[in-house]
Amino acid sequence: MSTRPFADRHIGPDAAAERRMLETVGYDSVDELMDAAIPEVIRWHDGLDLPPAATEAEVIAELRALAARNTVAVSMIGLGYHGTHTPAVIRRNVLESPAWYTAYTPYQPEISQGRLEALLNFQTMVTDLTGLATANASMLDEGTAAAEAMTLARRAAKSKSPVYVVDADTLPQTVAVIRTRAEPLGIDVQVVDLDADDLPTEFFGLHLQYPGASGAVRDHAPLVEAAHATGALVAVAADLLALTLLRPPGEIGADIAAGTTQRFGVPMGFGGPHAGYLAVRAGLERMLPGRLVGVSRDAAGAPAYRLALQTREQHIRREKATSNICTAQVLLAVMAGMYAVYHGPAGLKAIAERTHAMAARLDAGLRAGGVTTAHGAFFDTVTAVVPGRAADVVAAAARRNVNLRLVDADRVGISCDETTVEAHLTEVFAAFGVAAPTEPAAPVEPVDTALPAALLRTGDYLTHPVFSRHHSETAMLRYLRRLSDSDYALDRGMIPLGSCTMKLNATTEMEPVSWPEFADLHPFAPADQAAGYRDLVASLEGWLAEVTGYDAVSVQPNAGSQGELAGLLAIRAYHLSRGDTGRDVCLIPSSAHGTNAASAVMAGMRVVVVACDPDGNVDLVDLDRRIGQHRDTLAAIMVTYPSTHGVYETGIASLCAKVHDAGGQVYVDGANLNALLGYAKPGRFGADVSHLNLHKTFCIPHGGGGPGVGPVAVRAHLTPFLPHDPLVAAAGDAESGAGATRPVISAARHGSAGILPIPWAYLRMMGPDGLARATGVAVLAANYVAARLRAHFPVLYAGNKGLVAHECILDLRPLTKATGVSVDDVAKRLIDYGFHAPTMSFPVAGTLMVEPTESEDLAELDRFCDAMIAIRAEIDKVGSGEWPKGDNPLSNAPHTAAMVTGDEWPYAYPRSVAAFPAGVDRAAKYWPPVRRIDGAFGDRNLVCACPPPEAFEQ
Amino acid sequence: MSTRPFADRHIGPDAAAERRMLETVGYDSVDELMDAAIPEVIRWHDGLDLPPAATEAEVIAELRALAARNTVAVSMIGLGYHGTHTPAVIRRNVLESPAWYTAYTPYQPEISQGRLEALLNFQTMVTDLTGLATANASMLDEGTAAAEAMTLARRAAKSKSPVYVVDADTLPQTVAVIRTRAEPLGIDVQVVDLDADDLPTEFFGLHLQYPGASGAVRDHAPLVEAAHATGALVAVAADLLALTLLRPPGEIGADIAAGTTQRFGVPMGFGGPHAGYLAVRAGLERMLPGRLVGVSRDAAGAPAYRLALQTREQHIRREKATSNICTAQVLLAVMAGMYAVYHGPAGLKAIAERTHAMAARLDAGLRAGGVTTAHGAFFDTVTAVVPGRAADVVAAAARRNVNLRLVDADRVGISCDETTVEAHLTEVFAAFGVAAPTEPAAPVEPVDTALPAALLRTGDYLTHPVFSRHHSETAMLRYLRRLSDSDYALDRGMIPLGSCTMKLNATTEMEPVSWPEFADLHPFAPADQAAGYRDLVASLEGWLAEVTGYDAVSVQPNAGSQGELAGLLAIRAYHLSRGDTGRDVCLIPSSAHGTNAASAVMAGMRVVVVACDPDGNVDLVDLDRRIGQHRDTLAAIMVTYPSTHGVYETGIASLCAKVHDAGGQVYVDGANLNALLGYAKPGRFGADVSHLNLHKTFCIPHGGGGPGVGPVAVRAHLTPFLPHDPLVAAAGDAESGAGATRPVISAARHGSAGILPIPWAYLRMMGPDGLARATGVAVLAANYVAARLRAHFPVLYAGNKGLVAHECILDLRPLTKATGVSVDDVAKRLIDYGFHAPTMSFPVAGTLMVEPTESEDLAELDRFCDAMIAIRAEIDKVGSGEWPKGDNPLSNAPHTAAMVTGDEWPYAYPRSVAAFPAGVDRAAKYWPPVRRIDGAFGDRNLVCACPPPEAFEQ
Repeated sequence: MSTRPFADRHIGPDAAAERRMLETVGYDSVDELMDAAIPEVIRWHDGLDLPPAATEAEVIAELRALAARNTVAVSMIGLGYHGTHTPAVIRRNVLESPAWYTAYTPYQPEISQGRLEALLNFQTMVTDLTGLATANASMLDEGTAAAEAMTLARRAAKSKSPVYVVDADTLPQTVAVIRTRAEPLGIDVQVVDLDADDLPTEFFGLHLQYPGASGAVRDHAPLVEAAHATGALVAVAADLLALTLLRPPGEIGADIAAGTTQRFGVPMGFGGPHAGYLAVRAGLERMLPGRLVGVSRDAAGAPAYRLALQTREQHIRREKATSNICTAQVLLAVMAGMYAVYHGPAGLKAIAERTHAMAARLDAGLRAGGVTTAHGAFFDTVTAVVPGRAADVVAAAARRNVNLRLVDADRVGISCDETTVEAHLTEVFAAFGVAAPTEPAAPVEPVDTALPAALLRTGDYLTHPVFSRHHSETAMLRYLRRLSDSDYALDRGMIPLGSCTMKLNATTEMEPVSWPEFADLHPFAPADQAAGYRDLVASLEGWLAEVTGYDAVSVQPNAGSQGELAGLLAIRAYHLSRGDTGRDVCLIPSSAHGTNAASAVMAGMRVVVVACDPDGNVDLVDLDRRIGQHRDTLAAIMVTYPSTHGVYETGIASLCAKVHDAGGQVYVDGANLNALLGYAKPGRFGADVSHLNLHKTFCIPHGGGGPGVGPVAVRAHLTPFLPHDPLVAAAGDAESGAGATRPVISAARHGSAGILPIPWAYLRMMGPDGLARATGVAVLAANYVAARLRAHFPVLYAGNKGLVAHECILDLRPLTKATGVSVDDVAKRLIDYGFHAPTMSFPVAGTLMVEPTESEDLAELDRFCDAMIAIRAEIDKVGSGEWPKGDNPLSNAPHTAAMVTGDEWPYAYPRSVAAFPAGVDRAAKYWPPVRRIDGAFGDRNLVCACPPPEAFEQ
Repeated sequence: MSTRPFADRHIGPDAAAERRMLETVGYDSVDELMDAAIPEVIRWHDGLDLPPAATEAEVIAELRALAARNTVAVSMIGLGYHGTHTPAVIRRNVLESPAWYTAYTPYQPEISQGRLEALLNFQTMVTDLTGLATANASMLDEGTAAAEAMTLARRAAKSKSPVYVVDADTLPQTVAVIRTRAEPLGIDVQVVDLDADDLPTEFFGLHLQYPGASGAVRDHAPLVEAAHATGALVAVAADLLALTLLRPPGEIGADIAAGTTQRFGVPMGFGGPHAGYLAVRAGLERMLPGRLVGVSRDAAGAPAYRLALQTREQHIRREKATSNICTAQVLLAVMAGMYAVYHGPAGLKAIAERTHAMAARLDAGLRAGGVTTAHGAFFDTVTAVVPGRAADVVAAAARRNVNLRLVDADRVGISCDETTVEAHLTEVFAAFGVAAPTEPAAPVEPVDTALPAALLRTGDYLTHPVFSRHHSETAMLRYLRRLSDSDYALDRGMIPLGSCTMKLNATTEMEPVSWPEFADLHPFAPADQAAGYRDLVASLEGWLAEVTGYDAVSVQPNAGSQGELAGLLAIRAYHLSRGDTGRDVCLIPSSAHGTNAASAVMAGMRVVVVACDPDGNVDLVDLDRRIGQHRDTLAAIMVTYPSTHGVYETGIASLCAKVHDAGGQVYVDGANLNALLGYAKPGRFGADVSHLNLHKTFCIPHGGGGPGVGPVAVRAHLTPFLPHDPLVAAAGDAESGAGATRPVISAARHGSAGILPIPWAYLRMMGPDGLARATGVAVLAANYVAARLRAHFPVLYAGNKGLVAHECILDLRPLTKATGVSVDDVAKRLIDYGFHAPTMSFPVAGTLMVEPTESEDLAELDRFCDAMIAIRAEIDKVGSGEWPKGDNPLSNAPHTAAMVTGDEWPYAYPRSVAAFPAGVDRAAKYWPPVRRIDGAFGDRNLVCACPPPEAFEQ
């Protein structure tokens, strides 16, 4: 039945274009090209055992059938996941808008001002609500944010004690994540009932939940004081909605706040994605992990946003990084920030008051009905004490389509949220066998009876005008449009970022994400309500195992960095399970992405660098030497394949064998898996473990810097060490043998489950042949670009027969030396030509790495090559002195409309060259909103909250 | 339960802004303002009997419950409505994109180039596929397109016979619409079985269906020749998908082609909306009704698109117009055109071949099973002959979730389409009790056995590059983004168009339109499958009756013009039903919208104009005179209230009484109903009938020029003459008494049912108080603008106490006389300031009519007023001679980026003034893609298809 195959929509070049590209590269067919490019030793010839490609319509029908097997119940489970009304204007114009979701991480800030402003709103929202000085641009979830808070505390605390004290009323999944992260670092986690027991005498940090998982609202100020007295730091996991009513962590002296912003308009998604947050008091900002947006200025002195303090980050500091976190949850942070913008301070407070009033009515009703409740002071959650009856009550509620939390045999947790209505309370009362209060229809007035007077918040928050100007839908719509219009995303043109795989995020893949049956499930909903999700995850994990040649996959890691950690922890646990306790060396080639090293450190390993040879390959001689030096302590090698140089190294099989022979495990970073699918399987050419990037190879959009999903894939012997269900782990299960603990990588069992329909749909629609074809065309496109540009820029590194893999490195160093034109100048000049720059100075300083992907058609590839060739001619004009070194279209790039339309034009080249270099469509030009940004200025003068409007006056 | 009321999101100004606005206008409260503005004689004080406002979440839940009561079955009914796969990239980025759906009709072409290009694609697609010279930019549906073809034929034919011959194999609903339209015009419709019977000797036109409703594919060439020989014109209602395989109408000599483009990616929507089409041979283009997009050039000589030949249209020619059609189905025409762009000629042909192959398999299978089929030559539809068994077969299929067409007791129609799969055929075979062919899983190869060789199409179509460049999803996404980026819509800023009510189209109103349960129902699906729709329509009609004070409403008319016609036909039928056969005069004030007059002519009435007095009100003395002159023949008066001058005329009650006393009926055009809701009810202050504009007052988006919905509302005595179900009418039902015929206004019973969830949601979310508040704030906003601008531009006309209603007219004539700066100059200059112009020269030449609506917040109102005041200062500089008359920012407006960044700047004012006049945000400016367009040039050199790419070379 032939309607057009999806692969024809996903892959840019059609058959005629493919022929022209092959001609340029010098091959007769893609097969022939791939035979030449990929070393036979790793080649997989047996195809992929996947279901044949389905059409878009068929896949939508299949996903609707899966969705129908999920049950959307009323969720009152709480535990950090709450019902929320996503404002429709935000759903449609952020979550469902390609202008937002196809954007890349804002490394090119001049073309990312819109999402940087949105993230600054998010940061301002978090700092205002937590009462702390600086917040980052989001974390992966509350569990990982709390774990990062712990390691931050360890770095910053005066106390050198290894003890980290965790409030026993902490979310159980958070405790599980903290334990996983603590163990390899030698941190001693002590969970303490702070109502009953004393603090230990020595500890470096204290984690408090506010309000507690039980719903209890406590005054933590004395504990904070006590902790500080011992030289410890205090992290508070705080509910931002509660903080509209309660004294914020900053006011009780906390050093750190961590948590989730899910309930700010982001659907639960069966666990994710949503944005976690992390905020710190003044003095700790330079130790903060993750992305941080700050204000700086552009070449004209105007305020401009960019990522601040990047030198903290893993891609620069490697094993000295403060964390391995690369990505944030930008798309979701934008949504949460916009939720605050749309509601404003009064609106948020009204939501909080209404939520609290519902909980208060519930509490009063239960008590009136003779049910004891555990806490007099609470915000949204009531713990009911029903000795021996808890399971029955929870079951009775489930029959009434309401999910409650089964705390233990005697206690039931009930959480209210923005979506709670009177009818839900009625069902809860019925489940408890309690008569509903007599005045059920009476309007809920704001009450504060259950909030301790001493903890009531005073003072204003969210006072920046952005939180009061966009409360009508029209205003909100225009604000979102204006911000996204500032930015360059895949919906405008190519983003040829080496190693980042900015390919099509097809609409059919994206649409199911919005369906209530995928969006509105609580991660701890009863299993029988999530049958569709279970099947979807199982088939996705199975397909991912098949295409990678591994035996098992877990989708729990909610970013590539987390997948790395999960993989390394599996290796660690494997060695320990065999009593092989001394293996802690991780070999990492010098070409590796810095995250690898940071992850290894987090997994308790020591990093040993292996050199590369002059061709960019891992130096096998140096490898032998390193193995020799560390034979008894060798835990693993981490390599990327194809290498970060974009080359199929021929020595890979030999490398694997050498490491195995020395008792080590082989970790193949799956960042470049898109150059292998259908042609080679890491699990079959020698690797033991990989993480994959579903947001790269498998089409989850980058979202402007998240969400990502980084499943971990392992051979059979590592299967017992795959990530564990956080709740089961928290309950003390020890199912994995030999005393080893299965790690808990993210707060929800399936991580960012809500976006797994995307890779599921991609795999299902491409089918085995389509996946292989995509790989072939991606490699063809990279070689086409290399062939067209080689005469203008040297192409650094190549493999067999001078071929690159799926990306190519253009070496600008000789030109820079000769002309002073830097890689930055070229990247910024590309903006004037209507492009996002390729990856700059990674993996080699002074170069550009180009990855065209299979989704760009020949017209766009040619437009890019033509632009690069034109830029080369511009560089020559600088070199020849026709244009002065400090005053040319490259050094002044990018050019804004304000600059080029200025009444004065003091530059050495005409306006037309500035604005409309060859080939730029005059009627459809993308204008960057700011000129080149001075990042260093902003780092010296750190501002990470929304600047006042006056700052923008011209 | 107080989550924020939707009215607070819909209405722009908050309480503080409202107070500031009231201060400026000089009133203490909105109530006080409205008491002063609205004549007490029409005032309604008893509120609206509507359900109280629901929240957005509640309304989504209610609509989901309604949707769940619709059944999405497999539709094989055919009859012009077919299943189709809407490409997801088009759904998300056109149908669900505010940049497309909130746009206005492209009367300001400089800021509408994107949708004009999209419409030119549509026109090119239609002309290519029909083989005719010129197509317009869409019609309302196939039925109305066929009716317009009839009247076009009558205007153009040499034959003066009153006979119009209609092929008996025409879609029954089309016949019903044609009959309705023919009757008042004295056209004698003769339905002829052209297989069996001869053509009459005299007739002015011949309507043919191709392929026939039965599925039969006939060679119509001999009939065309015969018709031409008698001086008649031939219209062919052709299926565009079939035309990818069959000889097109143009090649067999047809003069006109009409039809629907629904199956080009537009969901059936239980009847609409979708784009009809109308195309004509060379020589007839200036007689074409409706919108026509053409190519002209801008001030720099570059190609530029705009509406062509506007002098044909109703708003200029009034009773001499070729049709009363105002709006098109732009949003849907864009979708259909993009479907062709995305699939390209080969893709469309493949879809047609596959569809035909399915039908051929069905035919073969039925015949193999002993079932007779009626036609040897067919495209997608098979008529099975099962004497006496037809109803049983249809019922059996329905039980298998497949809808077939019950033709009569002996015949069943089965239509295949793009969505047909093997499993559907299997169910059909089972319903017939026929064994499925033995090789059900065999791939369908293109076959042409059932297409007569002589009718096979030869030659290429869709050869313009636009149909071959955007076949990957990435390319399509970017094309859609680029086009929408060219345009200015409500998502960028205010569109203060007097009489057009460009208010918020809330996302919550829009989202349900995409749900399959609303999108995927065939209009002739069995009643029990459409229970949700039935309830939705019933409640919507009831609410509309309540807010207007009428007794009954029909949502069938799928545009305001159609509502007018329906209302006038009801009046006509009413008079006739009473034996009052001489009443054919329709009084229309000189201030009326031209459509009124055109509609009256179509309803068989003679237009008599009533003068306005110097204050712009209907001149009651002249009214008396006209009534006196036409007392015995007076059928009706049509007035707009508040008047097109934006004033609450105090004489309205008296006017109604006078007309009633003379035996006439009062038609109140509901265009300005948004100034009355909650404060006055036309049905209670004297009117007998109104049409409403759901796309204005009730938030259906304008879509760039359609869809519109124009329900007709009547008092009880006119209820028997409301629009009829087309299929029932076609079956010869005569339920309405006294020999009068209930009109059939559109092809489907509920017209554009698919978008009725929008007004339903609006009414439900606003509730009675919210609706009244919206009215009050709209009137306040208009008076605020009038108050702020009065010192700079005289405000023409006012009512009580100098107040305007919901819009105000700024009189530029004195300034134009003094300075030469025209209303056009101001309109185009507003583009430079970032605005869509107000309505130009309507209802008074040389003026601008401003309607701010309730949805604009105070910041945007002030931005507009500030811009107008700044423009006034610019006009003064021209007046003072500081700027030359022909070289100033007004005469050169709008300024493109290409112009302002030019290397030369030969103008008398600085670039900064051109590009960034006071208040324009330098970082977020909207740049028009072309300079001012020379419309007359394009009319002299008519080009209505895509120009070659070379035309755009710079």
